[in-house]
Amino acid sequence: MNGKGRLILMPNTLDFGVDDSLDLRDVLPQRVLDTAARLSHWAAENAKTTRSLLKRVSEVTPLAQPLQALQIAELPRQAKGRAAGDDSAAWRALLAPALAGHDVGLISEAGLPAVADPGARLVALAHEAGIEVVPLSGPSSLLLALAASGLNGQSFAFVGYLPVDAAARIARIRELEALSAKSQQTQLLIETPYRNEALRQSLLTTLKPSTRLSISVGLTLPGGWTRTATAADWKRGNSPALPDRVPAVFALLA
Amino acid sequence: MNGKGRLILMPNTLDFGVDDSLDLRDVLPQRVLDTAARLSHWAAENAKTTRSLLKRVSEVTPLAQPLQALQIAELPRQAKGRAAGDDSAAWRALLAPALAGHDVGLISEAGLPAVADPGARLVALAHEAGIEVVPLSGPSSLLLALAASGLNGQSFAFVGYLPVDAAARIARIRELEALSAKSQQTQLLIETPYRNEALRQSLLTTLKPSTRLSISVGLTLPGGWTRTATAADWKRGNSPALPDRVPAVFALLA
Repeated sequence: MNGKGRLILMPNTLDFGVDDSLDLRDVLPQRVLDTAARLSHWAAENAKTTRSLLKRVSEVTPLAQPLQALQIAELPRQAKGRAAGDDSAAWRALLAPALAGHDVGLISEAGLPAVADPGARLVALAHEAGIEVVPLSGPSSLLLALAASGLNGQSFAFVGYLPVDAAARIARIRELEALSAKSQQTQLLIETPYRNEALRQSLLTTLKPSTRLSISVGLTLPGGWTRTATAADWKRGNSPALPDRVPAVFALLA
Repeated sequence: MNGKGRLILMPNTLDFGVDDSLDLRDVLPQRVLDTAARLSHWAAENAKTTRSLLKRVSEVTPLAQPLQALQIAELPRQAKGRAAGDDSAAWRALLAPALAGHDVGLISEAGLPAVADPGARLVALAHEAGIEVVPLSGPSSLLLALAASGLNGQSFAFVGYLPVDAAARIARIRELEALSAKSQQTQLLIETPYRNEALRQSLLTTLKPSTRLSISVGLTLPGGWTRTATAADWKRGNSPALPDRVPAVFALLA
């Protein structure tokens, strides 16, 4: 159209390398696999996991170019505890191939890029540069967890991670529960897997007995499951600890 | 496991019958198509559109049974303007095949079931009845629009439809803009297609000039697009009216 390439939002699987025996065709449409196989330029949250995904793609659909020939650039990382410097130039550089007419794939560690990851900044820059943005259909653990929860799917919010500090975490859980009660809005949150069980305990000791809590573990993976019950029922259930290496999504509705 | 069937959450395409020339393999994984072809029992928002989807599935993957032999039950509808009667029995009846050992597919008019549609109630009943709930990967216009917007994907909310009454609608837009500014939370909303342009006008006349507005139209469909700009830039841009028969998703970040 305008001589520019497009920014293609490429979904990833939800296995985070935990279980790469999964058939990609279980979670990704054929067209998405074909598109991934065709792209020569990538902007990736992690180049290594992108290569490993593309290797799996190549087992289903031949890549247009050998893996070694692909240009996979990583999103700039912000050093922890340091104020954001002016790294716009590094971000803009990722779009240079698109300005030169090549489609660029944006891919994150899992699920849809630019959702619950740093990629949105690249998408915003693409809009500013007049580069067309094309999102491709794929799994989102947040939306699959919401659908499987049976909680309100007509009003919901994703709020990311809770504070690590115990008092701040409890205050935040109470705040989310009040918000949920006020607007009947399902609140979705995530945690790094090794803290899954600790988050569950915080939720169960803090939430009112009647508040419904849904936990989804390992969605789309073998053995994945979703359970929804009131906080009171979760406590009575004496359920085993959550796995510490499998991603989970938590949803609550007060 | 327990002799019961499962409730399978079956994603639909996003074409709403607007464009059924789309290849299903563009948006649905092969496994989802195979699963759809295997199920003999369905709970559907709309039996007619479910049949038409399954007909399209049959062109890609043979159905295990002829279309005519499938049991497709519709979700009970609440009569408008009438208080909800006790229709639990009608809802529970939809799960009878699962209690008898058959997998039941839950499917909505578009995208993931139980998200922005009435299906969540059936999912909640499945949890209560100890029926396993299995969400399958598919397109969600809300999450694709969020990803393509470049707005904050680390905190976002879907708030459904706005009030139809003009004054109430303006008040609600101001409320959502304030909420977004306070918590840097992207607010996602939808409208029935024939009111797309009216909603855009309300947003442009109500939002602050610096608030970013993203509009996605016809995602995953040929000619679909996403544009993100400040309210001021949208107004300057003199953009043509939004189509009145294609679904759109609106996202704002103040």
